[in-house]
Amino acid sequence: MSKKKLNIGMVGYGFMGRTHSNAFRSVSNFFDLPLEPVLKTICARNGERAEAFKNQWGYESATTDWKTLIDSPEIDLIDIASPNDTHAEIAIAAAKAGKMVMCEKPLGRNAAESEEIVAAVEAAGVPNMVWYNYRRVPAVTLAKELIDSGKLGRIFHYRAKFLQDWTISQELPQGGEGLWRLDVKVAGSGVTGDLLAHCIDTAMWLNGPIEEVSAVTETFIKARKHNLTGQMEPVGIDDASLFLAKFQNGSLATFEATRYARGHKALYTLEINGEHASIAWDLHDLHRLQYFDHSDEGRLRGWRSLHITDRDHPYMSHWWVPGLQIGYEHTFIHQAADFIEAAAKGESASPTFREGLRTDDVTDAVLESARSRAWQSVRQR
Amino acid sequence: MSKKKLNIGMVGYGFMGRTHSNAFRSVSNFFDLPLEPVLKTICARNGERAEAFKNQWGYESATTDWKTLIDSPEIDLIDIASPNDTHAEIAIAAAKAGKMVMCEKPLGRNAAESEEIVAAVEAAGVPNMVWYNYRRVPAVTLAKELIDSGKLGRIFHYRAKFLQDWTISQELPQGGEGLWRLDVKVAGSGVTGDLLAHCIDTAMWLNGPIEEVSAVTETFIKARKHNLTGQMEPVGIDDASLFLAKFQNGSLATFEATRYARGHKALYTLEINGEHASIAWDLHDLHRLQYFDHSDEGRLRGWRSLHITDRDHPYMSHWWVPGLQIGYEHTFIHQAADFIEAAAKGESASPTFREGLRTDDVTDAVLESARSRAWQSVRQR
Amino acid sequence: MSKKKLNIGMVGYGFMGRTHSNAFRSVSNFFDLPLEPVLKTICARNGERAEAFKNQWGYESATTDWKTLIDSPEIDLIDIASPNDTHAEIAIAAAKAGKMVMCEKPLGRNAAESEEIVAAVEAAGVPNMVWYNYRRVPAVTLAKELIDSGKLGRIFHYRAKFLQDWTISQELPQGGEGLWRLDVKVAGSGVTGDLLAHCIDTAMWLNGPIEEVSAVTETFIKARKHNLTGQMEPVGIDDASLFLAKFQNGSLATFEATRYARGHKALYTLEINGEHASIAWDLHDLHRLQYFDHSDEGRLRGWRSLHITDRDHPYMSHWWVPGLQIGYEHTFIHQAADFIEAAAKGESASPTFREGLRTDDVTDAVLESARSRAWQSVRQR
Amino acid sequence: MSKKKLNIGMVGYGFMGRTHSNAFRSVSNFFDLPLEPVLKTICARNGERAEAFKNQWGYESATTDWKTLIDSPEIDLIDIASPNDTHAEIAIAAAKAGKMVMCEKPLGRNAAESEEIVAAVEAAGVPNMVWYNYRRVPAVTLAKELIDSGKLGRIFHYRAKFLQDWTISQELPQGGEGLWRLDVKVAGSGVTGDLLAHCIDTAMWLNGPIEEVSAVTETFIKARKHNLTGQMEPVGIDDASLFLAKFQNGSLATFEATRYARGHKALYTLEINGEHASIAWDLHDLHRLQYFDHSDEGRLRGWRSLHITDRDHPYMSHWWVPGLQIGYEHTFIHQAADFIEAAAKGESASPTFREGLRTDDVTDAVLESARSRAWQSVRQR
Repeated sequence: MSKKKLNIGMVGYGFMGRTHSNAFRSVSNFFDLPLEPVLKTICARNGERAEAFKNQWGYESATTDWKTLIDSPEIDLIDIASPNDTHAEIAIAAAKAGKMVMCEKPLGRNAAESEEIVAAVEAAGVPNMVWYNYRRVPAVTLAKELIDSGKLGRIFHYRAKFLQDWTISQELPQGGEGLWRLDVKVAGSGVTGDLLAHCIDTAMWLNGPIEEVSAVTETFIKARKHNLTGQMEPVGIDDASLFLAKFQNGSLATFEATRYARGHKALYTLEINGEHASIAWDLHDLHRLQYFDHSDEGRLRGWRSLHITDRDHPYMSHWWVPGLQIGYEHTFIHQAADFIEAAAKGESASPTFREGLRTDDVTDAVLESARSRAWQSVRQR
Repeated sequence: MSKKKLNIGMVGYGFMGRTHSNAFRSVSNFFDLPLEPVLKTICARNGERAEAFKNQWGYESATTDWKTLIDSPEIDLIDIASPNDTHAEIAIAAAKAGKMVMCEKPLGRNAAESEEIVAAVEAAGVPNMVWYNYRRVPAVTLAKELIDSGKLGRIFHYRAKFLQDWTISQELPQGGEGLWRLDVKVAGSGVTGDLLAHCIDTAMWLNGPIEEVSAVTETFIKARKHNLTGQMEPVGIDDASLFLAKFQNGSLATFEATRYARGHKALYTLEINGEHASIAWDLHDLHRLQYFDHSDEGRLRGWRSLHITDRDHPYMSHWWVPGLQIGYEHTFIHQAADFIEAAAKGESASPTFREGLRTDDVTDAVLESARSRAWQSVRQR
Repeated sequence: MSKKKLNIGMVGYGFMGRTHSNAFRSVSNFFDLPLEPVLKTICARNGERAEAFKNQWGYESATTDWKTLIDSPEIDLIDIASPNDTHAEIAIAAAKAGKMVMCEKPLGRNAAESEEIVAAVEAAGVPNMVWYNYRRVPAVTLAKELIDSGKLGRIFHYRAKFLQDWTISQELPQGGEGLWRLDVKVAGSGVTGDLLAHCIDTAMWLNGPIEEVSAVTETFIKARKHNLTGQMEPVGIDDASLFLAKFQNGSLATFEATRYARGHKALYTLEINGEHASIAWDLHDLHRLQYFDHSDEGRLRGWRSLHITDRDHPYMSHWWVPGLQIGYEHTFIHQAADFIEAAAKGESASPTFREGLRTDDVTDAVLESARSRAWQSVRQR
Repeated sequence: MSKKKLNIGMVGYGFMGRTHSNAFRSVSNFFDLPLEPVLKTICARNGERAEAFKNQWGYESATTDWKTLIDSPEIDLIDIASPNDTHAEIAIAAAKAGKMVMCEKPLGRNAAESEEIVAAVEAAGVPNMVWYNYRRVPAVTLAKELIDSGKLGRIFHYRAKFLQDWTISQELPQGGEGLWRLDVKVAGSGVTGDLLAHCIDTAMWLNGPIEEVSAVTETFIKARKHNLTGQMEPVGIDDASLFLAKFQNGSLATFEATRYARGHKALYTLEINGEHASIAWDLHDLHRLQYFDHSDEGRLRGWRSLHITDRDHPYMSHWWVPGLQIGYEHTFIHQAADFIEAAAKGESASPTFREGLRTDDVTDAVLESARSRAWQSVRQR
C-alpha cells in the first residue's frame, strides 16, 4: 500500500541544503509516517552545481529559478535553505501560492522581515516550521520533558553559550559562497542571528518568554576583504554578542555567542538550575545529558551523565540499540518526522514561523540594547 | 552520466540488516564512488516481515529463500547479516556462484567454520569483507594512522574491554528472534565471539598479531528458558570472558568482555601505551580520541580530548562542518564506501575474510585456554 | 640555627580562622622560609571557644579582645579572619600600631571602607595582603604564567562563575554564627562581595583592569528569620549577581555568582580565550588545568587536561610526587609562604590591600549598575 | 586538660617519612583523639639529613640507629617508613620490645618475611597497622560502606589498575636513594609489591578473598646502571605485572600495574560491578566517586560523579566546607586518626599486619603464577 506523497522543492544546496535533503531522504527508513516525502526539485543559482546536487541526492529535477517551484502544481512544500536575505521573498511567495513552507533559521534578517513572513503564512493558513534543529536533540527534548513534568521546580538560572573559533584570522574574507554569514547585508547580523538565535529558541522553549535584556556586542576585526568586490570593506556583523536576561518566570540568565573562542568549534552549551534539580547539555557531546537531582540520597547526590541512547529516551526507539549514539544530522531527521506528522493533519510543527518571529524579537532587542547601551524590553507577541 | 550498478542481495533483516541497508542506501550521498550500490533484494525467513523491510528500505524485491539470491544473475554481492550459524553455508554458496561476499562478524562460529569460508572465497577469487565496523570509527582510524606513523614508538601495553549489562536478569530467556546471541548453538559462543571479537580485530589491526593467551570465562546464570522450546535449558554461552595476552611485538595486554557490568550499555574501550605517546578511545563517546604526547612541553603535558569532527580527520571531510559529530551508523557507511572502492577494482577490503579467520583463531585460543586453564598459543596463518 | 620568629595574632576562629591557622602551622614543613611563623594568640568573642581553638591549633594564648593584640609588643602580624564588618576597625588600628596586617577577603564591606584601610596601611608602611587564595591554586598560577609569557596572544573573552546552592531553602535563617554572610549589615553585600570578589580578583590578575560593567542582581527569598532577633526580617543581600564587563584590553566578559544553582557546592569556574590558546579551570577539580593550544598539529588539536602535580608546576615541588594531588587548604599555605618571603624584606605580597580595594571598586560598580540599570564605569586607581 | 601522649619513633625520612610525619603532626588539629601524638625521634642512616628532617618537622631528637628507638622507654610507637628490606628486622625487634608498630606497605618483601613479622606482633600483642593509605580516601571508604550496605548486590566484576610512566627511560639507574624500588634485593619485587599490593589490599577489603590467579610479568628494560656499584646490572624487578583473578564470592577480575604507561603518573583505578549498582574511582581525581544505580528511574539512569566533599561523606566533616576538596596526604591523616583511636584501646587498626600478610600471599601467588605460567591458588589464612 503506497502512501500519499509529500513533494518537496528545496531551495539552497549549501550546508543546510545537505542536512535538509538528508533528513527527507532518510526519515521514512526510521519513522512510520503518514506521508512519503519525495525529493522533487532542487533549486540553486548555479545550474551546474544544482545538477550535481540533484544527482548526488536523487532529486528528480533541478532548476535555477525558485519561482518555478512556486508555480509548479507538483510541489507541496517549499523548503528554504538559502542565505538569510532570500528567506522573506521566497517564503511569502510560497505561502501566497498555498504551499507548505519550511525555513532555515533565522526566519528573517530581523523581526520586521519575519513579521511579514508570519503574516503571509498565517493569512494563507499553510503548515510551516523554522529549522531550529537543536530542540530535537534527544537530550534536549528530554530536558524539556523533565522541566514540564516539574522535576526541576521553580527555575532560578539559565545560561547558554555558543562558542566557535573559525573567524579569528584576519585573512578570512567576507561574502560569497560559504562566507555570506560574515556579510551583514546578506546575514542581517553576525553571531546574534546565527548562533544566539539557536540559544534563544531553545531557552524560550524550555524556560518561557524573555522579558528584557542588556547586551554588548563587538566586532574584533573591523575590515575584511569582500569576496564579491575584491576590496577591503568594513565588517558589519557582530563577532561576539553577550547579554543578560530576565525571563518572565523570574529567572536570570547569561547568553553569549562568539566566533573568537579558541578551541571550540560548535560548542553550544546550556544549563538550567531549578529548586529541585538541574540540567546541563552541550553540542560537542550531544548524546549526553547532565542531570542533578537533589532528591537523591544526600551522600549519593551527584551530576549524572545520562547516555541518551536508551529506548525510553525521546526519538531513540527509532534508532539502534542502547549504548550506540546518533549525531548531528539526526536532529533534522527528527524535525522532518515531526513536521510530516503535523503536515498530514494540515498543521504546523513547532517552532512555527510565529515562534521564529519571537526569537527574532529577542535578537532585535539584543542588538538594540548593544547599540543603546541600555536595558531593552523584548516585544511580546 | 550514470554509474555501473552494484546490485545487492541482503540476507537478514535484524539489527545488522538495518545497519547494512542504511549504509548502502546512504553511502552515495556522501562519497563519490565508482559503483552505484542498489538495494536489490532482501531475504528473510518470515515473508511478511521481509516484505515490510523491503518497503521500509526501498528494496526492489523480497524473498524468503537465500538460494534465490545465489541463483540470480542480477545479484552482484551477497551481504550476510543473519545469525552466525548461517554464515558458512551462505558464504560458501555465494563464493562458489562467483558473487562478492560480505559477512557480519564473527565470520564463523569458530575457526574451523571460518577456514572453510576463507577457502571458498579464495578459491573463487571474489571480493570479500567482514563487517568489523569499529575500525572505521574516525577516531580509531586516526589511532591507526598515528601508530603507523611512529608517533607512539615502541608499544608496551594494550588494553580493551567491551562492557554491557543487558543479560543480568534471570528472567531474560534465550533463543529465537533477538535473543539468538544467548543460544550457543546459533551463536557459537557468548561474549567471546560477540564482543571480544571486535576488540581482537581492532587490536591486531592496531598492534599486530597476538601470540598467546591465558583466559577465564564464566556463565553467571546457568539456565534460562529457551524461547523455541519453552523449557528451562542450560546456558551454553560464556557471559564473561577475560584474558591476558602477549603480542608479537612484546607488548602485554588485558582483554575483557561481559554482559554483567551494570551501568554500561556498549562500552567498548581501548588504550594503547607507547614509548612516546598513548591513545585511548571508547564507544560511548566515539567521536573523541584521547591522546597524550610526551613530546609536549613538560609542564603542559596532558591528555588531549580530540573532537574528531575536523576536515582533516579520517572520513570527516565527507560529513558536516567542524564541531558536529557523527554516530554509530556512520562506521558502516565508511566501510561500505571502502568496500565499493575495492570491489570496483575486483579487490577485497580489509578486514578480509582471512583477517576475520585470524580473529577467530584468537577467540578459539581464548575459549580453549579457559577450558584447559593453561596458556594457549594462537595459531598463526 | 633558629630563625627569626613571626608572631601571629589571629582574629577569628570560624572557617577562615581554621584555614589561616593551618596555613601558618604547616608552611614551614614544606617551604624553607626566612621567618618562622608562630601561632601566638587567638582572639575570639566567645572565651570558651577561643580557649578550645587555642588548644586545638596550639596557640600560646587566647583572648576575647582584639585590642590586646594591637597593644601587645610581642605580636608582629595581625591576621583578620573575622566577619566583614570588623575588618576596617581592626586593620586600621593594627596599621597604626605598626603591625603587619593580613585580611580575609573582601577587604571592606565597600570601597569606601577599603579606601580608609588602604590609607592606613600605606601611611604606616606595613606589609599587608588580602587572602584571595585562589590565585595560589597551582593551576591558576600556571595560567597566569602562560598568559604573561604570551602563549595566549590577544585576549578576546573571559568568563567566570561561582555557583553554590546552600541557601535555596526558605527555612535557612540569616545572621549570627556561620550565617552572617546572609546579613547585609555584617557582610556588606551578598554573593557580589563573597563570591564575585574572588572571580574579579583572579580576573584582573590574569587579564588586567575592568573598565565598565552592566549588572543585574536578585534576591530570590525576600525575608528570612534573623538569628539574633528571632524575627522574620527582610533579606538585604543579593542572592545572585550577574554582569557583563569590558576589560581595558578590549576583551569581553560575563561574570555570575549565585547561591541558587542546584548541584554546585563551590563551583568557581573561569575560562579565557586568546588568539593562540585558551585556558579553563574550575574549583571542583582544582588540581587540573584545561589548555588548548592552536599551534598543535591540526588533526591533533584538543583540550589538554593537565594534572597539575608535576615538579615543574607552580608550588608543586614542595609537595609529594607527580600524580598526587593537593587540595583547597594548600592555597592558603602557598599564600602564607609568599607573604612571609615578602614580609621578611618589609614588603607586601600580592594581592595587597590596594589590589583588594580595586576589586571592591568593581563590586561597587556592579552593585551600582544593578541599582541604576545602566552601564557603570569602574573607578581606576 | 592535657591528653596522654603517644610518643613516636619514626624510621625513614624519604617520601613516606614525610607523609607519616605530616599525618601525626596534623591529625590533632582536625580530629578529637584520645591520645596526643608526639613527634619524638626521627631515625635515618645519614646523620646530617636526619638532623635537617628533625628541624623541618619539629621532632625532638634525631638518631642514626633505629635500635635506640627500640631501647628507649620513652618511645611508644615505632613507625617504619624505610625501604622494604628493613621492615622485618625493625618490626620484629619493636614488637619484642613491646612497642606498637606501624609499617609502610608492603609489610615484607614476600609472605615468608611477613609471616615472621605477624608472628612477632601477635606474640607480643601490640597494636599494629600497615599503611595501605588508599582505604582512607573518603571516596573509597564510601565505596566500602555502599558495598557492605548491600547497594551493589551480588558482585560480578572487579578491575583495578595502577599505571605509572616514570621508568620508561633506559637512562634511569637503579638502586640507592629514591631508586631502591628498582633494586630487587631491597624492594623484593617491582610493581607487584609496590603498586599491585595497593590494588589487592583495597580489593580484598571491598570484595573479599582472592582464590586464584593467572599472571604475567615483564621486565622491559633488562639492565640498568646500579647507583651503588656504578655498573650496568641486570634488572631483577618486574616492570609490569598483570593478572586474572577469581574471588571467593564468584566474581572475576583483572589487575594490572606498570611503570610503562605513558601519560599516567599515579593512576590507580578501580571499578566494581554489582547486580544493582556499580562503582568506579581513580586516584588522579581522588575526591570523586563514580556511582551508577540501576534503581534510578529508567530514562534518568546515568553514572553519577559524586564530589566527595560533603559533611555526610566519610571523614569529611573534619575538613572544610562542602565543595572544597582534600588531597593525597589526608589519607594518611585519616589512617593516623583511626590508628590512634584503636591504639588507645590497645587494639590494632585495619589493615593489621595479618591483613598485610594476606596481601603478600596474593602477590606471592602472582609472582609464582608468572614464573610457572599456570593458575596459582592463593594461600588462605
